[in-house]
Amino acid sequence: MESGILNRSGADQRVVLGVDIGGTSAEFGLVDRGGSCLCSGAIPTGAGRPPGTFFENLCTAARWLREESAPGRILAGVGIGAANANFYTGTIERSPNLGWDYVDVRAEIGRHLEVPVAVTNDANAAALGEMMFGAARGMRDFIVITLGTGLGSGIVANGSLVYGADGFAGEIGHTIVDPAGRVCACGRRGCLETYCSATGLCRTVQELICDTTLESELRSCSYRDLTARRVSEAAGRGDPLALAAFESCGDTLGLKLADAVAHVGPEAIILCGGMAAAGDLILRPTRVAMEKYLFPIYRDKVKLLPSGLGGTNTAVLGAGALIWNMLGET
Amino acid sequence: MESGILNRSGADQRVVLGVDIGGTSAEFGLVDRGGSCLCSGAIPTGAGRPPGTFFENLCTAARWLREESAPGRILAGVGIGAANANFYTGTIERSPNLGWDYVDVRAEIGRHLEVPVAVTNDANAAALGEMMFGAARGMRDFIVITLGTGLGSGIVANGSLVYGADGFAGEIGHTIVDPAGRVCACGRRGCLETYCSATGLCRTVQELICDTTLESELRSCSYRDLTARRVSEAAGRGDPLALAAFESCGDTLGLKLADAVAHVGPEAIILCGGMAAAGDLILRPTRVAMEKYLFPIYRDKVKLLPSGLGGTNTAVLGAGALIWNMLGET
Repeated sequence: MESGILNRSGADQRVVLGVDIGGTSAEFGLVDRGGSCLCSGAIPTGAGRPPGTFFENLCTAARWLREESAPGRILAGVGIGAANANFYTGTIERSPNLGWDYVDVRAEIGRHLEVPVAVTNDANAAALGEMMFGAARGMRDFIVITLGTGLGSGIVANGSLVYGADGFAGEIGHTIVDPAGRVCACGRRGCLETYCSATGLCRTVQELICDTTLESELRSCSYRDLTARRVSEAAGRGDPLALAAFESCGDTLGLKLADAVAHVGPEAIILCGGMAAAGDLILRPTRVAMEKYLFPIYRDKVKLLPSGLGGTNTAVLGAGALIWNMLGET
Repeated sequence: MESGILNRSGADQRVVLGVDIGGTSAEFGLVDRGGSCLCSGAIPTGAGRPPGTFFENLCTAARWLREESAPGRILAGVGIGAANANFYTGTIERSPNLGWDYVDVRAEIGRHLEVPVAVTNDANAAALGEMMFGAARGMRDFIVITLGTGLGSGIVANGSLVYGADGFAGEIGHTIVDPAGRVCACGRRGCLETYCSATGLCRTVQELICDTTLESELRSCSYRDLTARRVSEAAGRGDPLALAAFESCGDTLGLKLADAVAHVGPEAIILCGGMAAAGDLILRPTRVAMEKYLFPIYRDKVKLLPSGLGGTNTAVLGAGALIWNMLGET
């Protein structure tokens, strides 16, 4: 360990900046080696603002945060999670949410802060967060699934994140359930995330309204007003159609997770993200289906777990883990 | 490098024993660092012979082979590929073809030869063979698919074979095409290998005989007499039904390979094994389907290649690569 990074009582004085860049705002925070988020903040990203301005604002805010809330701590690196971010190139490419065509994130940060910078997509960052600080501590082979608007995934094999040949591995949300199935935003049909995600759950509610005669308060709700939270609340009140929607979602997710197990043989699969907050409503049917569809040698071996990051600042912790991991401090 | 392993002209004198244990016979050979199989042989495995006798015979034959055909060479290790072999435990477990319930292969070999021993399944061995000596030289992320009686697979990510949490990763043949599909020997329905393998191809011929009115010489052939080679020969003569069977097989394989790409983002997928010898009959429709089903960011990037091991002694070369890889000679 370098000299000068321990205080008088021997504690590591280093912190990293973890940043989660979303379509409307970027959350950031200072994360120590133990996975505590010491302080956090947010700045807007959106509305076509040029990336140079955004990264300048981000670095200014980060510097201010360290000086005000973590005096004496040493900034050792910056980890960034964002959709379409590429670990190998350090870039964010063709990000429709941000209106950015191509951004060299490492160069942008490098103009303002002289520390190592790493970027990857948000699901990969979540996987590293779970490995360093959460439910996957001590595991060398596991998968993290993020259930949000879409379905993201990060795969760890032999103790390392799988980035693939050009940095884009881990798109389980775009494996195909049914080549004649639901139209996906990616231009194909039947992608897993059209069934299993907040959006997929709402689409399933529409399918069940059409195909079944199940009673439901959701028959009074337009698709535009429907949210996964509303389906979850209805299910919590025992709404038969909402419960059937979670069952259907879990069955499809379990089928494709069984396929994922047949690829990389993980010790556990960890469900994170907004929709995973529905807890056993989604975990139980997914677990039942996964066991049913698993190749026999894998049965009763693969744990299906909720996130171990506590639900707050999880994306910031994941981005922080990305750079801690690169700094070699596991 | 250890002393005493180079001859006067500086050439590495070490060889390894590569062994491929099949249901009826075991092929073996001495493989040098450059991937040349210097000499080879075979002994029977089958008919419930106790494993102790088999491994004694194998080691005697290997010792004889080295003395007769490779005098002066040093045996540096033994690599073994076999169905149901586990890299972590060094065992072969519940192998119905061999009639063996549980064999500690490392201990069995250790009774006769004092060299490092590694075991893994045949598809993983094939992947290491392609990485060290064949079509995947220089690649860090790729998948090998073996198309034989069944469909095996070996996945390499970040330059290392993916064994998974308990040594059984890489069973792409048992990912599910259709949960209501063809019955598989594993007890489930719709596994990829029931469609894409020598057996799967023959089953598809029966489906097409049933579902279509395509003319075919194969309508005169019973299922029991049908082989993938016969379908391939008929296709070579322009038989419409045989050609349709390869198209169907390639379409299903391409669909599931697109899923595999979405997991691990490989640089290439390499098709090996007996049925891959059909060449473009299977490669072309698989490539077309894979591109059609690929998530857009992967399109036109993933190579689909035939084996680069030359077609002879490929399993022995793979098993040899397994132990060379463990000896740290890449």
